[in-house]
Amino acid sequence: MILVSKSQIKLISSLQQKKYRNKWGLFVAEGPKVIKELIVAGLKTHSVYSTIEGLFDLTETQLVSEKELEKISFLKNANNSVALFEIPKSKVCSEKGLILALDAVRDPGNLGTIIRLCDWFGVSKLICSHDTVDCYNPKVIQATMGSIARLNIQYVNLNEYISESKLPVFASEMKGENIYKKRLPENAIVILGNEANGISEEVLNLVKNKIAIPQFGKVQETESLNVATATSIILSEFKRFTEQ
Amino acid sequence: MILVSKSQIKLISSLQQKKYRNKWGLFVAEGPKVIKELIVAGLKTHSVYSTIEGLFDLTETQLVSEKELEKISFLKNANNSVALFEIPKSKVCSEKGLILALDAVRDPGNLGTIIRLCDWFGVSKLICSHDTVDCYNPKVIQATMGSIARLNIQYVNLNEYISESKLPVFASEMKGENIYKKRLPENAIVILGNEANGISEEVLNLVKNKIAIPQFGKVQETESLNVATATSIILSEFKRFTEQ
Repeated sequence: MILVSKSQIKLISSLQQKKYRNKWGLFVAEGPKVIKELIVAGLKTHSVYSTIEGLFDLTETQLVSEKELEKISFLKNANNSVALFEIPKSKVCSEKGLILALDAVRDPGNLGTIIRLCDWFGVSKLICSHDTVDCYNPKVIQATMGSIARLNIQYVNLNEYISESKLPVFASEMKGENIYKKRLPENAIVILGNEANGISEEVLNLVKNKIAIPQFGKVQETESLNVATATSIILSEFKRFTEQ
Repeated sequence: MILVSKSQIKLISSLQQKKYRNKWGLFVAEGPKVIKELIVAGLKTHSVYSTIEGLFDLTETQLVSEKELEKISFLKNANNSVALFEIPKSKVCSEKGLILALDAVRDPGNLGTIIRLCDWFGVSKLICSHDTVDCYNPKVIQATMGSIARLNIQYVNLNEYISESKLPVFASEMKGENIYKKRLPENAIVILGNEANGISEEVLNLVKNKIAIPQFGKVQETESLNVATATSIILSEFKRFTEQ
């Protein structure tokens, strides 16, 4: 049983903030399931704290008391283990397959769900505008499980990225064409926007193909689908074409 | 400015629990947006408390102080208004169109997202097993906005309901047939199951058509899609057929 030092507590606590995650190149994951999945996915641990001995085969674990664990956990109810992982360097990969781009998605739960969807649908790359929530945000990590380690995620200037890409680009927009009636290519970039405001004018102006999921209910209000559920339907539509 | 009486506070607080919601036939909605949407959708208010005068045209509002509002709000940060609505009686409606059935969905956030999806896709009825989370749970109400008032929701014995129905029934199951390759009818019941365990054996045994969303990623773990994202893709697949 060890006592977690003040400097360790200070380091871990600082990792709630993006600027310190970037400074130290570390992020926090909690609970045995998430930690195990990240280890299996090949991420390098920096340090692991647990109230249970021998929980993780692959790595040196520091045994701590429940009280010590509570001090370093970000969760309301600490879940027996806290681990610090190194943020992996983003891989250079070819511009092929389906690429998802997010413009200013702010909610960590939505980004978490979207990352799991990318993993499920074999999206080759996730591009995020700089003002999209950080994917190493603790809430995103808890929501994505191992998926985050299997996906290539890059934060970019979205205008520049879209301008420079040679792939066909599709933007999800309320007034777009019925997605069910459109022929969707195998290699493409598809953009989804902010929870409240959608895709910014600047980015939209760069895109010719605008697509929308038609509404079937007799709703009068101008409701929109949540960005994560819209993403699931759009990725499914692109992928069903490769099946036919 | 009125003081909320002890008996009013007691009544409102009791409505966090399903048994008291059923006993009094009332549920709680908070925040001007949700309350307005429910009024517009035609639900009857029992009582409305607000720190702002004249916020709701259609109903008599009791002006309260911020402190009073905090006492009756279920939210961490009370949002200027709390309203009690009468639980509407479920309408008898014909067994036509697309009916969604849920078997033991437990998470209020998931049910909230699913109700909004049903509204979007014009699902004619939502059937819930008795052990599905109550749709008048405060967290569900906050997540669904006005959608809950536009949808016909019934809690039933799911085994009996499925046995007695004359519509073709589809069950979402990991080992089911590729949904993209299946011809899906306009009038049908589609069942989704519990977050951890899927659909119960008992219900599954009653269903011939099992469908699955194929996995495209090179994932080795036996991950599954979240029930709300799976619902969005499945409803989209059923509805796209009616478009063609």
